[in-house]
Amino acid sequence: MIDLICIGNELLTGLVEDLNGGYLARRLWARGMPVRKKAVVGDRQEEIAAALEEALEKSRVAICCGGLGPTEDDLTREAVAALLNRPLVQDEGWVEKLEAFFGERGMSMPASNLKQALVIPGARLLDNPYGTAPGMIIPWNSRYICLLPGPPLEMQPMFERELLPFLEGLDWAEKVQTRLLKCVGLGESFLDEQLKSLREWDNPSLCLVSSGLEVHIQLCATGDGRRDPQQLLEEGAALIKKALKDFYFGEGEETLEEKVAEALLKRGETIAVAESCTGGLMADSITDRPGSSRYFKGGMVAYDPAVKIALLGVPEALIETEGVVSEAVALEMARGVRDRLQSDWGIGITGIAGPGGGTKEKPVGLVYVAAVNGPGEECWQLLWNGSRRMVKSRTVQAAWVLLWRMMREDADS
Amino acid sequence: MIDLICIGNELLTGLVEDLNGGYLARRLWARGMPVRKKAVVGDRQEEIAAALEEALEKSRVAICCGGLGPTEDDLTREAVAALLNRPLVQDEGWVEKLEAFFGERGMSMPASNLKQALVIPGARLLDNPYGTAPGMIIPWNSRYICLLPGPPLEMQPMFERELLPFLEGLDWAEKVQTRLLKCVGLGESFLDEQLKSLREWDNPSLCLVSSGLEVHIQLCATGDGRRDPQQLLEEGAALIKKALKDFYFGEGEETLEEKVAEALLKRGETIAVAESCTGGLMADSITDRPGSSRYFKGGMVAYDPAVKIALLGVPEALIETEGVVSEAVALEMARGVRDRLQSDWGIGITGIAGPGGGTKEKPVGLVYVAAVNGPGEECWQLLWNGSRRMVKSRTVQAAWVLLWRMMREDADS
Repeated sequence: MIDLICIGNELLTGLVEDLNGGYLARRLWARGMPVRKKAVVGDRQEEIAAALEEALEKSRVAICCGGLGPTEDDLTREAVAALLNRPLVQDEGWVEKLEAFFGERGMSMPASNLKQALVIPGARLLDNPYGTAPGMIIPWNSRYICLLPGPPLEMQPMFERELLPFLEGLDWAEKVQTRLLKCVGLGESFLDEQLKSLREWDNPSLCLVSSGLEVHIQLCATGDGRRDPQQLLEEGAALIKKALKDFYFGEGEETLEEKVAEALLKRGETIAVAESCTGGLMADSITDRPGSSRYFKGGMVAYDPAVKIALLGVPEALIETEGVVSEAVALEMARGVRDRLQSDWGIGITGIAGPGGGTKEKPVGLVYVAAVNGPGEECWQLLWNGSRRMVKSRTVQAAWVLLWRMMREDADS
Repeated sequence: MIDLICIGNELLTGLVEDLNGGYLARRLWARGMPVRKKAVVGDRQEEIAAALEEALEKSRVAICCGGLGPTEDDLTREAVAALLNRPLVQDEGWVEKLEAFFGERGMSMPASNLKQALVIPGARLLDNPYGTAPGMIIPWNSRYICLLPGPPLEMQPMFERELLPFLEGLDWAEKVQTRLLKCVGLGESFLDEQLKSLREWDNPSLCLVSSGLEVHIQLCATGDGRRDPQQLLEEGAALIKKALKDFYFGEGEETLEEKVAEALLKRGETIAVAESCTGGLMADSITDRPGSSRYFKGGMVAYDPAVKIALLGVPEALIETEGVVSEAVALEMARGVRDRLQSDWGIGITGIAGPGGGTKEKPVGLVYVAAVNGPGEECWQLLWNGSRRMVKSRTVQAAWVLLWRMMREDADS
């Protein structure tokens, strides 16, 4: 097992969210190395040492994030040195790296940074191309203390390039093998029914987690000497994919957005979006993907009804008879943006994000999402609970599901 | 001090991010109650009990989140009962609430939910309008064990309505008083220089945290018998506001976006945005605010250069001579969207979000942000390091700073 210790006062005052713990847990687990516990402690030597002591008693590896900076607050090195009774020594190689780091930036090294060349004797140093603190792997009584810097931009590459391969090379008796299958567009009760027989399995075991509109199914298999965990996973995954074939879209780090983008590229088609209540979030979500300019023409955020009429060509009479939040207007918006931006696909979204603006007939959370592509036109009526942000983000997720469904039906037919 | 314990296997596999720990830390700290340590443990009775034991040894209050559900995995109640040696008893009042909860939804109560009516003898129950598990406050040897449900939608209202007032009513010897001042648009080294004398203070102490383009300054004062902490904070805050008057924008939970929105409403003006590299994120950020329809006309995401020409009226010749990523094009986009959407303010954003598309003259991360309002026109050239998402989000922050600056200059003149 592995223990994580995240270090920094700012994490305990809530000024900064700890992003490292979740990242490391996810990455380690995906490679079959389970995390026993995560602790978040302040910049206090005795707290760091106490957390480390517990971690080394219960787990084989303790990974500490943070507290490697140049200031007096940064005490992780000191806590480890005191705990192991190995006084810190200056690493001349790292002093040279520090001088080079500052030299390249046309600066001379501040004296305080010299502290970052202090290392635990016996440690293997981990390179830090984006910062000034080295990481360390410190072997101790068949266990390992690993130190990583706190800033995610420095921590993540160091972890991926050096620490993760090192940990994978250790011989893990308790190593688990996992697979993560991703589904969308189905209720949990339906899923429960479909997977009833599988849920009684204990190897691989199943863990279901909702993530927005998606349901992620994690399979965990352990080798028990008789059966090969990879084969157990393969069999389990095949059964699940068969049972959920209408909902399954990908595995591991794959995303629904990526599946839709790949389909658009394969079809050689482009897309444009007209948004009202989601206020630009759909366009934002499309453009988060590098290379999206190859299939994304652009979007219109038609917040004011007058903009829907003037720029998207939604007939004023339609808005009067059907209301601005209606299936007819969503479809007109989708057609309007497709025609004006000369794309193949058009998306139209109109609804009431709240907290104000709802009526008995059209309550807060009511949203219409339309997608058009040539003769293919579809519109979903949705009703969400929750905050304004929740309505916006669930609606955008639904739009991706709608696109994915329509493209898959095309592919099937 | 307070210890936080977040419970759930899904938190250790990284499948779900722990949002409760950061929320509770921030809210407790803002009310002067410091958090000593946060632990994240799995659904294992012995791990929960061990974390609780440590917490109660070091802190006066231990708050546990999660593990109160109806399934066999949910073991928080059992762990506390075993630790305190107080067998769980069924609370008949809660059984009635459960039956009513399901009755209102036209369902009969599943037998497994009866487990949620099991309580620790001596506990004060905390109501849960959004779910089926009660929270608890359990006094024990002048200390308190507090249990909250894991889903944030249930946890947050319960914490705010019942647990926070209870904790504030306790007599906290170590209670600190804090204030959070927020600045924007200044470098950390400049800030260091300005605050040099203040930083040597130890009461109130200063803590600086960067949050995107903002710098948040937290002042912490403790009553030492001689001086009143509120007055210490008042004096410190006044000095900081004076030193940083060009950069200070608000306090506590106030946001820059809110300051700009308030200024627009006060001026009775409207805004529209034309975005290229931010891909809708600026519009999304404007529309996250309830009531934004009162001042936000709409936006155009002009991703394809052809869309900039056709819909925003950017002259094709200008794109050819200046390039699509240029000050001239950003200004034309701002003017174009203002004129077409008939708003008072127009924002134009064009740049290279990366990772591809950069050249030596115009590298990845180069962005122009323009704002126009009548005769007032301003354009910033920015150059960001970092991922595509980072470029998008920093650019949107910069657009808010630009708007805030221009409106404040108007107000000053």
